[in-house]
Amino acid sequence: MSAVELAILGATPAFEQPLPVGQLYFPEWSAYEQAMRGIFERQYYTNQGPLTQQLEQVLQERLGVRHAICVTNATIGLLMAADALGLRGKVITPAFSFIATSQSLTWAGLEPLFCDVDPLTHQLDPVLVEALLEDNDVSAILAVNLWGDVCAQDQLRELADRRGVPLYYDSAHAFGCAVQGRAVGNFGALEVFSFHATKVLSAAEGGCVCTNDDELAARLRNIRSSYGAGHPVHVSRTANGRMSEAQAAIALLSLNSFAQTLERNRGIFAAYRDALAGLPGLRLIEPQAVSTTNYQYVVCEIDAERFGLSRDELQAVLRAENVLARRYFYPGIHRCTPYDELYPEAAERLPVTEALCAKVLQLPIGQPVDVAGARRIGQIIRAAQEQAASVRHSLGGRA
Amino acid sequence: MSAVELAILGATPAFEQPLPVGQLYFPEWSAYEQAMRGIFERQYYTNQGPLTQQLEQVLQERLGVRHAICVTNATIGLLMAADALGLRGKVITPAFSFIATSQSLTWAGLEPLFCDVDPLTHQLDPVLVEALLEDNDVSAILAVNLWGDVCAQDQLRELADRRGVPLYYDSAHAFGCAVQGRAVGNFGALEVFSFHATKVLSAAEGGCVCTNDDELAARLRNIRSSYGAGHPVHVSRTANGRMSEAQAAIALLSLNSFAQTLERNRGIFAAYRDALAGLPGLRLIEPQAVSTTNYQYVVCEIDAERFGLSRDELQAVLRAENVLARRYFYPGIHRCTPYDELYPEAAERLPVTEALCAKVLQLPIGQPVDVAGARRIGQIIRAAQEQAASVRHSLGGRA
Repeated sequence: MSAVELAILGATPAFEQPLPVGQLYFPEWSAYEQAMRGIFERQYYTNQGPLTQQLEQVLQERLGVRHAICVTNATIGLLMAADALGLRGKVITPAFSFIATSQSLTWAGLEPLFCDVDPLTHQLDPVLVEALLEDNDVSAILAVNLWGDVCAQDQLRELADRRGVPLYYDSAHAFGCAVQGRAVGNFGALEVFSFHATKVLSAAEGGCVCTNDDELAARLRNIRSSYGAGHPVHVSRTANGRMSEAQAAIALLSLNSFAQTLERNRGIFAAYRDALAGLPGLRLIEPQAVSTTNYQYVVCEIDAERFGLSRDELQAVLRAENVLARRYFYPGIHRCTPYDELYPEAAERLPVTEALCAKVLQLPIGQPVDVAGARRIGQIIRAAQEQAASVRHSLGGRA
Repeated sequence: MSAVELAILGATPAFEQPLPVGQLYFPEWSAYEQAMRGIFERQYYTNQGPLTQQLEQVLQERLGVRHAICVTNATIGLLMAADALGLRGKVITPAFSFIATSQSLTWAGLEPLFCDVDPLTHQLDPVLVEALLEDNDVSAILAVNLWGDVCAQDQLRELADRRGVPLYYDSAHAFGCAVQGRAVGNFGALEVFSFHATKVLSAAEGGCVCTNDDELAARLRNIRSSYGAGHPVHVSRTANGRMSEAQAAIALLSLNSFAQTLERNRGIFAAYRDALAGLPGLRLIEPQAVSTTNYQYVVCEIDAERFGLSRDELQAVLRAENVLARRYFYPGIHRCTPYDELYPEAAERLPVTEALCAKVLQLPIGQPVDVAGARRIGQIIRAAQEQAASVRHSLGGRA
């Protein structure tokens, strides 16, 4: 292999434009234009309009789920979920997740009870969940289906059933995934998807709560609408959780090309897998428990000692090349506001989370990158390892 | 005047298409298309992007306020406000408002302490506020600037200052209004605007929190962003309160034609004023306390006895003509979920609110209607009164 000259050592950056982490798949302009012209003609811009209704219908059919309830964003969806489930006290949840997972609990007046994760899959560890379930204040498990994979769902369900508390999922990372052919969205009491621009199905901002429980669905619809909706179901709070027509238009169009989106992602992921194969100290996280993944993330663990550079040093190398690799999740939720002050002792109970937050690095996948780009990024990482001494020297004490 | 034949008595409806209540002013398609093409080209769809930043800048300049913080919707803005102000316990607020006013308090873990309103202006009654301030659990006043008008701001400020609690405003109805030349958005600790499609400035869904308090602004920005933002300011919770670029694009373009929007509304309002003048038992609510209004609503009070028809009967007459006149606010917040169960005794303390909820009727103003339409609606209302006996007969016991 020819030597790759690194931007951090003075070469021209590999990419002219900054390469973000995030899916950023959007519909063709012409299709979007047509959809938006329709909205303008109807003058029906929001409040559960025809496109939002259509999107819910399409999602229900595609996922084979009884209820898909579209919302402004997944954070609001998770907040509505906590209320619809009537939770109180503590909820077992990972600190190794996007902060919205725990935020939804805090806004709902609940307390996250942080549970550590599996060092290989990064998913919630059922053995530790079982121990935490002994706390009498626990009223639910909010599990996260991470990295286009899912948790140990069978074990978690069994634990939840035995203890008699609901299990529900933050599936912001798992739209389009399936477990033994059954679409994610059908598991637990309910699942919440994110349709943020960085996700594999986008509405720019947006999300969706899926459930097969009619009663729960009625409560969720009631909570979503300021003045309630549908047949009267008791809820303790309502809100504005509405998805606008413009959001629904983007998601509907993106669903049309969703198979191509996954296929494209699959190719990029495969290119990374090849390019990074056999690199000492770098482990690529591969979905284990799903029959179909969405390749929403390319997650590496960097073992500083074996790789020769720390995760932060490698990130600096990539950033110099205009590859906006991200430390995600960093810091862990337990070290963010307000949890750092509420649970200063949490870190001691979360050794795996602590270690992962220092090791994980996200590489670009999705619309902004292609197979050639992924190969090039792989070469850069390989070169960074080969030239680790020079890189470290150039960084001084910076990274 | 020639006799108007009423649809409820068998004539053809006055309007072919249903005429909604709601502003629904939107930018010209060509301008919107150009803005959206820009977003697609930049591939920057949300997360405090360039258009959102520009909108905040423009709003700050236009209102002469130090901080305009754009949000997903006004409900979220009000919720963020309650948290940013660090409130606890009870908050004095009217039950004669859109339910989101109180919902924001409930989601924030606070208790609305409903206060009755002035029968002439429909605004919060300062005399009653003063009495409620004797409750030691009160931590703030959340006043509502209603119907393109404002409350008795000076008196409320004095009361709040004397008691040492913050006064803040739900100004969802008051964007574009001014008091003695000073833009609404500059009063109280902060004000929250709505940019819902039905409002005079639209982002389809959207809103904005305005404040001249730098510290409060920093807290609000921190709360709005999942992982916080700007220099570290302590907040107890963060959330996803983001406005997307598509939302900001609509609001920015709508601001360009905002002067024409207000002028057009002024003409429609004047047409109603003329058409409804001198009708016994119908009172048109006119803004009193502002130097500039936005004519966001045309609000009538119907005194059933003097008018000859009840509010609900008149509404039925108008609906038959395809005029989607609304009973707004109806029911009062104290009679909605969850407040009806929490405060079953509230109605007794709110005689004016109770009376208004049975009397108010909203007529269409904004993009869907024009001056000729307003005149026509006025004629229909006049004819309904003239033919009250036949109308009542035709309605049987329906309305």
